Amino acid sequence: MSEVLMSCFLFNIEDKSYNGGGIGSSTRMMDFLEEPIPGVGTYDDFNTIDWVREKSRDRDRHREITNKSKESTWALIHSVSDAFSGWLLMLLIGLLSGSLAGLIDISAHWMTDLKEGICTEGLWFNHEHCCWDSDQVTFEDKDKCPKWNSWSQLLISTEEGAFAYIVNYFMYVLWALLFAFLAVSLVKVFAPYACGSGIPEIKTILSGFIIRGYLGKWTLIIKTITLVLAVSSGLSLGKEGPLVHVACCCGNILCHCFNKYRKNEAKRREVLSAAAAAGVSVAFGAPIGGVLFSLEEVSYYFPLKTLWRSFFAALVAAFTLRSINPFGNSRLVLFYVEFHTPWHLFELVPFILLGIFGGLWGALFIRTNIAWCRKRKTTQLGKYPVIEVLVVTAITAILAFPNEYTRMSTSELISELFNDCGLLDSSKLCDYENHFNSSKGGDLPDRPAGAGVYSAMWQLALTLILKIVITIFTFGMKIPSGLFIPSMAVGAIAGRLLGVGMEQMAYYHHDWAIFNSWCSQGADCITPGLYAMVGAAACLGKWSDSNDCFLVVIMFELTGGLEYIVPLMAAAMTSKWVADALGREGIYDAHIRLNGYPFLEAKEEFAHKTLAMDVMKPRRNDPLLTVLTQDSMTVEDVETVISETTYSGFPVVVSRESQRLVGFVLRRDLIISIENARKKQDGVVSTSIIYFTEHSPPMPPYTPPTLKLRNILDLSPFTVTDLTPMEIVVDIFRKLGLRQCLVTHNGRLLGIITKKDVLKHIAQMANQDPDSILFN
Amino acid sequence: MSEVLMSCFLFNIEDKSYNGGGIGSSTRMMDFLEEPIPGVGTYDDFNTIDWVREKSRDRDRHREITNKSKESTWALIHSVSDAFSGWLLMLLIGLLSGSLAGLIDISAHWMTDLKEGICTEGLWFNHEHCCWDSDQVTFEDKDKCPKWNSWSQLLISTEEGAFAYIVNYFMYVLWALLFAFLAVSLVKVFAPYACGSGIPEIKTILSGFIIRGYLGKWTLIIKTITLVLAVSSGLSLGKEGPLVHVACCCGNILCHCFNKYRKNEAKRREVLSAAAAAGVSVAFGAPIGGVLFSLEEVSYYFPLKTLWRSFFAALVAAFTLRSINPFGNSRLVLFYVEFHTPWHLFELVPFILLGIFGGLWGALFIRTNIAWCRKRKTTQLGKYPVIEVLVVTAITAILAFPNEYTRMSTSELISELFNDCGLLDSSKLCDYENHFNSSKGGDLPDRPAGAGVYSAMWQLALTLILKIVITIFTFGMKIPSGLFIPSMAVGAIAGRLLGVGMEQMAYYHHDWAIFNSWCSQGADCITPGLYAMVGAAACLGKWSDSNDCFLVVIMFELTGGLEYIVPLMAAAMTSKWVADALGREGIYDAHIRLNGYPFLEAKEEFAHKTLAMDVMKPRRNDPLLTVLTQDSMTVEDVETVISETTYSGFPVVVSRESQRLVGFVLRRDLIISIENARKKQDGVVSTSIIYFTEHSPPMPPYTPPTLKLRNILDLSPFTVTDLTPMEIVVDIFRKLGLRQCLVTHNGRLLGIITKKDVLKHIAQMANQDPDSILFN
Repeated sequence: MSEVLMSCFLFNIEDKSYNGGGIGSSTRMMDFLEEPIPGVGTYDDFNTIDWVREKSRDRDRHREITNKSKESTWALIHSVSDAFSGWLLMLLIGLLSGSLAGLIDISAHWMTDLKEGICTEGLWFNHEHCCWDSDQVTFEDKDKCPKWNSWSQLLISTEEGAFAYIVNYFMYVLWALLFAFLAVSLVKVFAPYACGSGIPEIKTILSGFIIRGYLGKWTLIIKTITLVLAVSSGLSLGKEGPLVHVACCCGNILCHCFNKYRKNEAKRREVLSAAAAAGVSVAFGAPIGGVLFSLEEVSYYFPLKTLWRSFFAALVAAFTLRSINPFGNSRLVLFYVEFHTPWHLFELVPFILLGIFGGLWGALFIRTNIAWCRKRKTTQLGKYPVIEVLVVTAITAILAFPNEYTRMSTSELISELFNDCGLLDSSKLCDYENHFNSSKGGDLPDRPAGAGVYSAMWQLALTLILKIVITIFTFGMKIPSGLFIPSMAVGAIAGRLLGVGMEQMAYYHHDWAIFNSWCSQGADCITPGLYAMVGAAACLGKWSDSNDCFLVVIMFELTGGLEYIVPLMAAAMTSKWVADALGREGIYDAHIRLNGYPFLEAKEEFAHKTLAMDVMKPRRNDPLLTVLTQDSMTVEDVETVISETTYSGFPVVVSRESQRLVGFVLRRDLIISIENARKKQDGVVSTSIIYFTEHSPPMPPYTPPTLKLRNILDLSPFTVTDLTPMEIVVDIFRKLGLRQCLVTHNGRLLGIITKKDVLKHIAQMANQDPDSILFN
Repeated sequence: MSEVLMSCFLFNIEDKSYNGGGIGSSTRMMDFLEEPIPGVGTYDDFNTIDWVREKSRDRDRHREITNKSKESTWALIHSVSDAFSGWLLMLLIGLLSGSLAGLIDISAHWMTDLKEGICTEGLWFNHEHCCWDSDQVTFEDKDKCPKWNSWSQLLISTEEGAFAYIVNYFMYVLWALLFAFLAVSLVKVFAPYACGSGIPEIKTILSGFIIRGYLGKWTLIIKTITLVLAVSSGLSLGKEGPLVHVACCCGNILCHCFNKYRKNEAKRREVLSAAAAAGVSVAFGAPIGGVLFSLEEVSYYFPLKTLWRSFFAALVAAFTLRSINPFGNSRLVLFYVEFHTPWHLFELVPFILLGIFGGLWGALFIRTNIAWCRKRKTTQLGKYPVIEVLVVTAITAILAFPNEYTRMSTSELISELFNDCGLLDSSKLCDYENHFNSSKGGDLPDRPAGAGVYSAMWQLALTLILKIVITIFTFGMKIPSGLFIPSMAVGAIAGRLLGVGMEQMAYYHHDWAIFNSWCSQGADCITPGLYAMVGAAACLGKWSDSNDCFLVVIMFELTGGLEYIVPLMAAAMTSKWVADALGREGIYDAHIRLNGYPFLEAKEEFAHKTLAMDVMKPRRNDPLLTVLTQDSMTVEDVETVISETTYSGFPVVVSRESQRLVGFVLRRDLIISIENARKKQDGVVSTSIIYFTEHSPPMPPYTPPTLKLRNILDLSPFTVTDLTPMEIVVDIFRKLGLRQCLVTHNGRLLGIITKKDVLKHIAQMANQDPDSILFN
């Protein structure tokens, strides 16, 4: 951390040289060299930023630095350091989020094992580390090493018998409850924003919304701790989504070290996009997939300049995590796999079946989860988050312990399901009858399943049902929870079941026409692990309503080759189509809508024929639009308008009669400026005339001094005509990141459309409740 | 091809059901159910399209199909087939461009070998195929097989002696000249657009420019044939850039089979983006890199919906090429490599040196090549393209033959340079003194270089100089020519030279402090092949002024792992920074500017403080803006305005006095409509009043009938105020894809800014000649 602090120090000293310029130097006000008023140009909490203004301010800042750099060496150094500060920031984000991911992985691993027992040699060893140098590590009894003591051994000194089993069971549930209780209490007391996966909120923030504290240091600290606790408690949740939130917190906090990013909401969102890429990069060990995730899924404004930097941050994060090596396999994730046998064209049929299963599950999950979350929001249930978490944890733990596939951590389960059975694998899933005694080199032929495989199948089927049901209730509770891992687990189980089924069918019926052509007796036709992987990809297909290219790329990076892209794509595409047919909305967007955030989906086309005049305020029977005139209203008039309305801004016109538009002024800026003038400027009273023109209007003698407010006037407001189709208006709002847009008819001002109006209109057109949009 | 034709047939039959709607149903005209006039809504050659109108039209079409689909089963089937036609199109593009790439690879390979000799067993075998089943294929004399006859063997029946050498030399030059002559003649006679790499033009077309025939069937056929000829002639050029052009031609031609894409310029550009991805995918065997290339480099409007489809097209193309297997190694490219030894942190120093070399070379190349191309354009030189090509070919061939590294094809050279010397490699580059006789398994330790390596070094140095000089003169001639391969060759040679140097230094001075810590005697410290690869990446770094993420991804896909991403990135980034410091413009953008295309760079920020009023026409001392009034001008008045001006459109105002804007009408639409009215509409004469209002103005009796033109009026023209900063105007032009924008002051129309004005202003601000912008 010391380098972070040092760089904070360095960059802030350097930046002092231009602090004076600050906000007042915005392009739109550049002709007016008045002192900027503090507060003008900032935003309230739960408000939308003005992208155009923010980008404009950054260009001003950049221009100023470039101009100054010709003057002195110091300014030149400052200019160069400013240019490289983006790269430095990316490096720091990569290092920090990679380290945190490593820390989370290691702690979660240790605490998950703590539920079952403890290492007598050193309390800080997890099960695997504890038994690493044990002599007894053979393939059969690698779970039995003398240094590792289960709770029954520690407490009642025996490993055998029903009582020992009950003691272990009890301790398992107890630890799970303790972890869950700690997690939910910490979240509740210290950082309420630390719950959930965070991705819906990050999407909203990146689209230009302000939620103060959502990416703050408390959220970071509490989310990191509670994520470990939540994962260790054995609940059906993953760490992948929350890791993106953690990385974004790192990005946001590190932004404070650089004036360039601290002061500009638009620039900061560029950094957050890159941080999200770093988060996915460490979550899946897939840097390219991370960048694509950020580009496709969460980012709103993603200039291509950012692509390179995001890629850099993602790589640094991946390398940091790799050098920490939390899994001891030199890979970034637990479930890296390599298959060696090719797939056959006929197998596309089961792969597509898996895709259909994935799509059905996705649609079902989204509906039931949203219904449950709505219930939580609207009924008494939402008032007892701690009890809810404890109840769900208790149910999960009690049902999970007896079944070894639910007892192990979900990542381990996925890793085992992906695994292609080798000769030396001793797990139940690989308990085949070894007829052939491995005559031919590496590849194992298809073999009949042994008793172990059959019992594993039953256990996996039970696991599947448990995971499907419990995940619906888990996602949305007041603890950090990601969806990727439970979804992958559901898909992987379904895939493995189908894969083993296919394998057995191919073994016993290899004379059937469908197998005949490509599967001779004794050949290795079917790889059940590949089915598990395809199933996992299929079940991930419906988290968003976007394209999920990033998924295929992540899978490509996990398998390390193009060989299996076609099966993966076939399943993911089928899943997407099936889920789309059952409901277009993705889980993140559904949660955004549930919370009423003002998120304007950038990917969905607006397909209705309405015009701007159908959406603008005032409506046909409303009173006229509230406007200010450019040089005839007094301070009192304006204050009356402010107090009588709640609009966040007012158009300024030449005169009420002509309704010719001059500019737009924000309510917040107006209030601050008038207050400031009353305090400081001599003689400004209620009857003073406010003017927005360049020169003060001619005044009769003995009138109070006037107040010039042109410097807070936006002289280039966006306008559209009343006959502009809404699809074009929506496009403009999206692409330029507007907060509001004025509507004219034949050159006269007619009305105003705000982002909230647009969102309400879209909701109305989609037959949804327009009042669900809460913020502007 | 039969399936293509069939689908053309199928889709066009189905599409007849809505052909009636056509252009007239555009949103902006939707209230006016008049018969659409043929020609309204199309574009002239060398003009810019209106993205907003095109997208609007597609949404109308889509809405109509969706509405109709509820009416009948046939319409429902049509709606579904319309939705899937995009995917079908992608599949066809992938298949066609993959097949063409395979064809080009195989033919070029055969014709390259034809320069040296011929296979007696079958004329259609290339050297490698000819000797495949030869008994004498051992590692030493695999080049000598009885079935393969060099020209001297065929003509004078001997392989030995000076005379045989001269015969071979002569035949080599003769074939090269013949191929080059055929290539340049075919291009000149049949398809002038087939020359060059095509990427600058494709960038411009994708940004919304119309160049008829640039992606047509003649260009496709001639480019495919001449590309093979040009590559085989031994000139210093590559096939990668032209392959992108070929794939885009395939995309454009296949678009004609689908009404959805044929009739809409914006939708067609989505397809072309995907086709470009498929082109890079087959050129480099890197589907993900291809998609990123398309996204970063050539595409202008790339909705994320297209990402998934591009990816699909790229994968299909890659798989098609792979199943053709042109190189016989089951890989998509000749130079796929796998390294096994890790790199060391200290090696970043030579890698960064390679980056600096790459940056210097990039900047030098762009300057000299552009200077030479400008000379060709402005002097007599440009009038003799055939002679120019023949002279350059002759020089290349004469200088190339004596040196084996220039004689072999450039891809083979790169493949050899990337190759890590194994024990069995017999090439000169691997002629080390084998002290250790391979005691330790796979890895070979560093060894002292033998005589072969030293002579190879000299030959490579000469090759480097030749390639650097000749490429400058080759790129831009009137034959298909890509830049990737020559650039990679230059970088790979420099890298290999440095790599071997480092290796020998490490061997002889392994006690030096810098080697001491990580390179013990007899260890394999340095991989010269990796240096070649890093050098190649460094020399590719400056083709564009964008980020070149796609390069790193391509390299990632070629090496198949994250292991070497850091060296590659370090070199590519250094190269980029060095080249940027010496000149910001990339080679493609420089060629776009040389040709005066109206390309608005989407990645570069506009950094000046000018306002819209500084750019708009009319300027301060010009006559007033030419406008039409909405209901008081006669046909004659309008025709006078049209004949006296050359503007491509006119604003329509309420009255000349008020200057309140109503809409915007295009010159082309106006001319076509008036002509049409004069022909068909009874009584429309020169004194008829043209009105753009909804209802006809009150007329005195006995006046000629009026002409209503509201249906060609754009009722939602884009406006900005005169005080809007140009940076925002540029942003609007870019993001919304405008052709023009009107400028108002306090609600009154003041002027107009066209795309050409914006480009001229940008050129002026960058101290370039604003008159270099030729088209609008």
